[in-house]
Amino acid sequence: MFKINTNYQKLPGSYLFSTIGKKVRSFQAEHPEKKVISLGIGDVTQPLAPAIIEELHKAVDEMAAAETFKGYAPDLGYEFLRTAIAENDFAARGCEIQPDEIFVSDGAKCDCGNIQELFDRDNRIAVCDPVYPVYVDSNVMAGRTGTYDEGRGIWSNVIYMPCVAENNFVPELPKETPDLIYLCFPNNPTGAAITKERLQEWVDYARRVGAVIIYDAAYEAYISEENVPHTIYECEGARECAVELRSFSKNAGFTGVRLGATVIPKDIKAEDITLHSLWARRHGTKYNGAPYIVQKAGEAVYSEAGKAQLKEQIAYYMKNAKVIYEGLKSAGYSVSGGVNAPYIWLETPKNMTSWEFFDYLLENANVVGTPGSGFGPSGEGHFRLTAFGSYENTAEAIDRIKGI
Amino acid sequence: MFKINTNYQKLPGSYLFSTIGKKVRSFQAEHPEKKVISLGIGDVTQPLAPAIIEELHKAVDEMAAAETFKGYAPDLGYEFLRTAIAENDFAARGCEIQPDEIFVSDGAKCDCGNIQELFDRDNRIAVCDPVYPVYVDSNVMAGRTGTYDEGRGIWSNVIYMPCVAENNFVPELPKETPDLIYLCFPNNPTGAAITKERLQEWVDYARRVGAVIIYDAAYEAYISEENVPHTIYECEGARECAVELRSFSKNAGFTGVRLGATVIPKDIKAEDITLHSLWARRHGTKYNGAPYIVQKAGEAVYSEAGKAQLKEQIAYYMKNAKVIYEGLKSAGYSVSGGVNAPYIWLETPKNMTSWEFFDYLLENANVVGTPGSGFGPSGEGHFRLTAFGSYENTAEAIDRIKGI
Repeated sequence: MFKINTNYQKLPGSYLFSTIGKKVRSFQAEHPEKKVISLGIGDVTQPLAPAIIEELHKAVDEMAAAETFKGYAPDLGYEFLRTAIAENDFAARGCEIQPDEIFVSDGAKCDCGNIQELFDRDNRIAVCDPVYPVYVDSNVMAGRTGTYDEGRGIWSNVIYMPCVAENNFVPELPKETPDLIYLCFPNNPTGAAITKERLQEWVDYARRVGAVIIYDAAYEAYISEENVPHTIYECEGARECAVELRSFSKNAGFTGVRLGATVIPKDIKAEDITLHSLWARRHGTKYNGAPYIVQKAGEAVYSEAGKAQLKEQIAYYMKNAKVIYEGLKSAGYSVSGGVNAPYIWLETPKNMTSWEFFDYLLENANVVGTPGSGFGPSGEGHFRLTAFGSYENTAEAIDRIKGI
Repeated sequence: MFKINTNYQKLPGSYLFSTIGKKVRSFQAEHPEKKVISLGIGDVTQPLAPAIIEELHKAVDEMAAAETFKGYAPDLGYEFLRTAIAENDFAARGCEIQPDEIFVSDGAKCDCGNIQELFDRDNRIAVCDPVYPVYVDSNVMAGRTGTYDEGRGIWSNVIYMPCVAENNFVPELPKETPDLIYLCFPNNPTGAAITKERLQEWVDYARRVGAVIIYDAAYEAYISEENVPHTIYECEGARECAVELRSFSKNAGFTGVRLGATVIPKDIKAEDITLHSLWARRHGTKYNGAPYIVQKAGEAVYSEAGKAQLKEQIAYYMKNAKVIYEGLKSAGYSVSGGVNAPYIWLETPKNMTSWEFFDYLLENANVVGTPGSGFGPSGEGHFRLTAFGSYENTAEAIDRIKGI
């Protein structure tokens, strides 16, 4: 008789955003006349930039003729895209990353969920708290996290690193020693950034204890301040200890297009085995590449026209961030984030729990956000709003919140 | 200090098609003047059908305007595609599969590699021998296969079911009892088909012993004979024991477009837990959906124009299959397959091993095929040719083989 992976059963409740979706659908079914505005899930709303649309049409036409038709993509992704990423995201910043250290995928979420497979079950993970749920959940499914304490909302074998107002939402080095460290900056959900000096401390620490940093750089395009690193490879020694996850979802509006890239420098080794060779093996065995037309769209992101158009797109969302930040502040909320990231993190008023505030906001302002407790215990009493709505909706949502 | 997943190190050599690719590149580098024809990897060569191209362009245009732009797709895939699959692939054949039992993905290879995650490490798998390498390799990476016997090319904890000329390349029920049974019909690599009666025996057996069948139906569009089932759900009771993997790669030429679907009926349960709920959780946590434009292309596969055009495309490849089959037969080879599948399976001449014949063919005819031993021990002494080339290349390749 077949037996299921019982680790799946350990996961408490369903995936955060699925739960939110259900609550919203149920509210909308009961109140079909209300116009609900979502500043909840981090999904973009602006159309693809013209340079990307043009390239997509061209690539579709290539698929229509035998001479230019493309079948299976190369295992690691097309050379043209890996080269564009290497040049623009790394060489241009003085970082030494070779095209063959970049693995193209159909999105950072998949890579983020799958990367833990390369490691033994006995590795101990450390995560920021609050944190994007996929880091922990994917390790739960692999049986790496111990037992769940429902009352405290924590796993016995996970090292939680609180990110709270007192430390500017940047974690301290942990007291216990982890094997895998998940970091995401600019951060989801807090919107906090890390300075180059602070990130260098993490790289030094990881090298000292022999840990691997899994660095999620999904929001780097939103960085507006100096001295905030756009990639962990700006830090010395990161090639020996850091994997970087890169996404096209937020910097180019590809949430529905699906494209990501994971960087694994060949210098990360356990004895003589490179992590790079393991990920290459995983790609070869369990993956068949991102669609050709999508990889061409990715290339267009790095064209001169694409860069200029996307700069405008990001400015559009960051204008929303400012509206949210300043609107809430003027209404008396304690807010942070929104300067180097499209996320605004606020303290819930009147000692409401995160989910109480979720319901309160949905019912009274018909605005959807994300409860901080869904991101970890230190997220309790906090709430995330995102800048990815249209300007009109964002402004209206903030007006409504100010009015309640 | 981090520790790697040592199961990866157990995998012998590199992935079959990567090895072939390296050998071919090396031969081509030494002999740049030779025109190598590949009948090796199962990659299509015909352009996308006009109905699909048209839909892709339309979908790209939708992504260009805020009103029609699409962000993250629904977890399970778009309703329009799941409904089209449910109606055309199942309801039309009298099979009861609901749209919400169909999970859209970026390809059957990923699903095929990931599906084993839902099961405990202690489950024992049974595979046809020879077999598509991903079934075994993905289980090796999960630590489910025991130790590797290099001499015999087998894993201690895998049940191999020989598929040889004596049993018409359809496996007998195994003597030892498996928990997971991988079946693929029409078969890769042998090109063999299974009758409905024989498949019903497998379904009955799986229900009797409490096993799950993972049924790979990637080649069903190539079925030309009556009484060969297009889906396992044509068999009674399959809803209680069978998962079906479906691919758009071969039936619509989507190898570079990336689209697949996995069917998990809600009747498959271990105690009260449905396999469906586990896969839904995996999708929600580690996956973010197939691209909208690709899902629209998938919908076009089921349009009247799409169906007619793809029928022609498949007829084109099956004409190649006939050229290969008859050409080799007339040259004295023992051949099978090629009637309900785009694969032709042949016995290597003069007691050559599969890899010896690979080298022989590459050097003397400049034709690339796939060594049977790469698919499992019973594949030794055999060789796979595929019908996915152009007609001109296929005919030339067969002429060359006949000439050596």
